[in-house]
Amino acid sequence: MSESGRPAAENGVVGNPGWRRMDPPELSPMLTHALDLFYENGFHGTSVRDIAGRVGVAIPSLYYHHGNKEGVLLALLEYSTSDMLARAHAADADGGGDPVQRMSNVVEAIVLRMTTRARLAALEGEVRYLSPENRLRYRVIRKEIEDLVHTIVVDGNEQGLFYTSDTAETTRAVLSMCQAIPRWFHAEGRMSPAIVAAKYVEIALTTVGYVSTADPRRRPRAKRAR
Amino acid sequence: MSESGRPAAENGVVGNPGWRRMDPPELSPMLTHALDLFYENGFHGTSVRDIAGRVGVAIPSLYYHHGNKEGVLLALLEYSTSDMLARAHAADADGGGDPVQRMSNVVEAIVLRMTTRARLAALEGEVRYLSPENRLRYRVIRKEIEDLVHTIVVDGNEQGLFYTSDTAETTRAVLSMCQAIPRWFHAEGRMSPAIVAAKYVEIALTTVGYVSTADPRRRPRAKRAR
Repeated sequence: MSESGRPAAENGVVGNPGWRRMDPPELSPMLTHALDLFYENGFHGTSVRDIAGRVGVAIPSLYYHHGNKEGVLLALLEYSTSDMLARAHAADADGGGDPVQRMSNVVEAIVLRMTTRARLAALEGEVRYLSPENRLRYRVIRKEIEDLVHTIVVDGNEQGLFYTSDTAETTRAVLSMCQAIPRWFHAEGRMSPAIVAAKYVEIALTTVGYVSTADPRRRPRAKRAR
Repeated sequence: MSESGRPAAENGVVGNPGWRRMDPPELSPMLTHALDLFYENGFHGTSVRDIAGRVGVAIPSLYYHHGNKEGVLLALLEYSTSDMLARAHAADADGGGDPVQRMSNVVEAIVLRMTTRARLAALEGEVRYLSPENRLRYRVIRKEIEDLVHTIVVDGNEQGLFYTSDTAETTRAVLSMCQAIPRWFHAEGRMSPAIVAAKYVEIALTTVGYVSTADPRRRPRAKRAR
């Protein structure tokens, strides 16, 4: 599980604009192969023997590093969520304190990750197989991302830039639409990660009730706006 | 697979306001138990033997009805998606041709189902384990729901009620935020299905760029709207 927090820190992602750079994830060979197997066959459809076999190590070596199969899943989820959190924080810091720019940056960071690291992002579906204790551990990091976005929504509301009656639920809705991306992105393959990110930045800003000053809706009763 | 289309038609859901009523799903005992097992252990973590054992039938009986384990998953997905589609159509028809009311109804119908039939809704995550042919078959029904919502978004745009630069992607975003609900709804248990539905109706309308005439954003540059 020592893999989990490390790569984000080594990348120096926090606090610099590197949050847009998507290098391949720095996972150990064991975790890389386990990720592929979980993606192909699901958590319950993958045995410790399968993972050890594909990596070419003995089973005890896997137990040594991760305790058991659930430990492998947890290590992957922790890596994935910590990486996402570090990028989201860096993107937020890069927004210069403006809620619109911060929201744009954070959504861009999330979508870039959802599109370029679809296998890691798809692990989310396996969270329900964690033990209650490990699920809680995962949810703590997960909650930090939600809290970050929530702060931006609240700030935007307070500054009269966003218009959201339920900031917490809207935050969850925005994160949910981003998290669904891995489910269709690879199958379709029509759009680049950057294009998907730009689209979702616009959709997310609309979802939090942002209306730019150039928008015809700023004019009263703009019927037939097209 | 004969179970798949039947219940929605028998309920007489299509074309009447019954789309708000959520009776327990009318699934055969075999499909009911399979649904529980897929939810608990995932598709790959469930064997045909497990299903037959829990239902109390011989394995050949399961093969007779559904061909194989994938046939069971497909039957569940087809039932689930057809039920959803029938409800969405009825909700849409109940909207009296007004894009705002149609959108409200359809989102309400979808969210009611996501909250009261969370196990069926969670099956979505298992779609990637279907064969390409069966996945296509599933996606055809799935696409109909997307098309229905898309039509409403386009109508709303054309009537100057909604304001969406990318109608297709916004449609997908709205459906994604609804589909994520089963992942948190039961764990939290704070809100009733009706309350979640009301919240998501409001969020979805904001996401498609609907701004009611009472909204302060109708006034130019409503800084500090609170």
